[in-house]
Amino acid sequence: MNQISDKAELGTGVKLGFCVRIYDNVIIGDGSEIGDFCSIGHPTKNPAFKGKPVKISSSSLVRSHTVIYEGSSFEERLETGHHVVLREGTFAGKNLRIGNYSDIEGDCLIGDYCRFHGYVHIGKGSEIGSFVWIYSLVTLTNDPLPPSNIFRPVKIDDGAVLAVGVTVMPGSVIGKCALVAAGEKVSGVVRPARVYASGADEFIVARLVDWETGKRHPWMNHFAEAYPESARGAIEDLKAYVKVLCQLSKNK
Amino acid sequence: MNQISDKAELGTGVKLGFCVRIYDNVIIGDGSEIGDFCSIGHPTKNPAFKGKPVKISSSSLVRSHTVIYEGSSFEERLETGHHVVLREGTFAGKNLRIGNYSDIEGDCLIGDYCRFHGYVHIGKGSEIGSFVWIYSLVTLTNDPLPPSNIFRPVKIDDGAVLAVGVTVMPGSVIGKCALVAAGEKVSGVVRPARVYASGADEFIVARLVDWETGKRHPWMNHFAEAYPESARGAIEDLKAYVKVLCQLSKNK
Amino acid sequence: MNQISDKAELGTGVKLGFCVRIYDNVIIGDGSEIGDFCSIGHPTKNPAFKGKPVKISSSSLVRSHTVIYEGSSFEERLETGHHVVLREGTFAGKNLRIGNYSDIEGDCLIGDYCRFHGYVHIGKGSEIGSFVWIYSLVTLTNDPLPPSNIFRPVKIDDGAVLAVGVTVMPGSVIGKCALVAAGEKVSGVVRPARVYASGADEFIVARLVDWETGKRHPWMNHFAEAYPESARGAIEDLKAYVKVLCQLSKNK
Repeated sequence: MNQISDKAELGTGVKLGFCVRIYDNVIIGDGSEIGDFCSIGHPTKNPAFKGKPVKISSSSLVRSHTVIYEGSSFEERLETGHHVVLREGTFAGKNLRIGNYSDIEGDCLIGDYCRFHGYVHIGKGSEIGSFVWIYSLVTLTNDPLPPSNIFRPVKIDDGAVLAVGVTVMPGSVIGKCALVAAGEKVSGVVRPARVYASGADEFIVARLVDWETGKRHPWMNHFAEAYPESARGAIEDLKAYVKVLCQLSKNK
Repeated sequence: MNQISDKAELGTGVKLGFCVRIYDNVIIGDGSEIGDFCSIGHPTKNPAFKGKPVKISSSSLVRSHTVIYEGSSFEERLETGHHVVLREGTFAGKNLRIGNYSDIEGDCLIGDYCRFHGYVHIGKGSEIGSFVWIYSLVTLTNDPLPPSNIFRPVKIDDGAVLAVGVTVMPGSVIGKCALVAAGEKVSGVVRPARVYASGADEFIVARLVDWETGKRHPWMNHFAEAYPESARGAIEDLKAYVKVLCQLSKNK
Repeated sequence: MNQISDKAELGTGVKLGFCVRIYDNVIIGDGSEIGDFCSIGHPTKNPAFKGKPVKISSSSLVRSHTVIYEGSSFEERLETGHHVVLREGTFAGKNLRIGNYSDIEGDCLIGDYCRFHGYVHIGKGSEIGSFVWIYSLVTLTNDPLPPSNIFRPVKIDDGAVLAVGVTVMPGSVIGKCALVAAGEKVSGVVRPARVYASGADEFIVARLVDWETGKRHPWMNHFAEAYPESARGAIEDLKAYVKVLCQLSKNK
């Protein structure tokens, strides 16, 4: 029932669901699983990526009804929800997790250990660091004068969190370990380790931190154990970074 | 063209579309219809529901490209839109209607006669009463310190209405017959029979009620005829409940 | 692997993907392409459109996992994203482009050269002019007392732009060449060539216009070249319309 191109390279132990289409130029790593009704290696008309391979690395899980274009690369343990769309020119690190109905529009860079929930729209050209959390219904835009051909994608630095329903306006930069509160429309630069929440003054994440109990922000303080051993060093670095900014804030 | 497990139990007159996959552990009631490209009984890795049956009761309509996990139960006349995802551990009463692209994340209880529109995200662990209306792009969250392992799902009582684009923050409780206005981010407790709308003071639904013409809130007053005869008693109870709160309010 | 009704009429050079279902009553024009896992001509229970044909005109591109109901009509060069739903009674002009996960609920009229991004919900009964741009997560509603049987769809005039996340409340009218800013909940009438943005006073688009550089609003001024030659006359008319309103505004 599947339609698998002869040119595709499938690793050892790859499992395919029902009615799966694998186009040419597809490389799937060992132990990965592709769900029912997926289209993998979907052709693009974009000349920069047309005919280029898509690499889905080992131990990945692509859930049903997902479309992944050619000309992209995902390191090990990619995990998608159902009905996801990943366009050409998406280059992502390891352990990327993407929720149901999310859409990465391509031409973008994504670091390691990022997690996006459902209905997330990553506009073309976005640059996203590592350990970035993006909640449901977040939109990263790129056109400052809609509609236009002006192209100002957004940049999200390591460890940042965008809560549910955030819209990031074109050209914005979200600093390292910053948090944008639910429903905000954020524009310009959000400084590192700050919380952006309208109505409230912008304040430093440090003030939310309870280093004793580890129960408050930043998330690296109370959620680090959700990551594999190999990720701990990088998380400790993020924690140290916020701690320094916290000290600086207290000294003022 | 379909792939139907031998272990599935299909009732009399069940209609299946094109390229339907029915996994093990599936029970489908008489006269139900499953659309094209659906995956029914999708396996879960959640040990609490792994290998448990999914029951789709009689006279149900599951539209195309929908995924329903094992370990769930839906009483008669379930009706889904296209591209819906229903995860394991969802226990719903009769006549649940869910719009296109909606996602119930599981471990949740839903009463009778609920209607959810499109792009609705019901976070894991939500508890929802009967006759609850949820409009497009509503999100029920459950994590108060995103990201964390703290788990505070929301609770929506009978007859409540959440208008388009509402975000219900973790741990919130929406009272019986309350209405949350379009676009609100609601947190904490919304008292029964109240309208929650920012900018305005919170006010009682009763003040919106025009019992003579039946043209205003609460919805039970002007929309009861859209329900089957068997549902009328429960609707009359909800109407009586709001009427009592209305009297109390006038007496103050 | 496809299931194509004998009664369907497919033009010359029509390309079909993998696992495509074409129901009865389908007319597809020359050179069009239908992606993997699409359901075209999906039956409706709506008596007004039941058994009526769906016409997808020439040079159209319908991307994977899309559902198009019977009883609709799309002029040449329809282009859909993935996972789109187009319900019965949708009558659209040429060059309609619709993004991933968008949903047109039917009984509606759409002009030429409209572009809708992803997760756009066009409520039943909406009337939309030509050259209308609708960005991600925009919802056109139609029920003023949700839930009710009262039906007040919205009307969007030629050249209007709805930015990301806009909710258009029931019965609203968005004037010719008006722009609604990101995230707004808009109600009532937005006058032609105005920008609607809360917090700011409503102001005329003309004040944003830089006729010398062509780099600002209205979009017709800096983006006309994105349309085919045949569309230029209509775009010049829209530009002239805004220019007149601009003069009137200056004279006041």
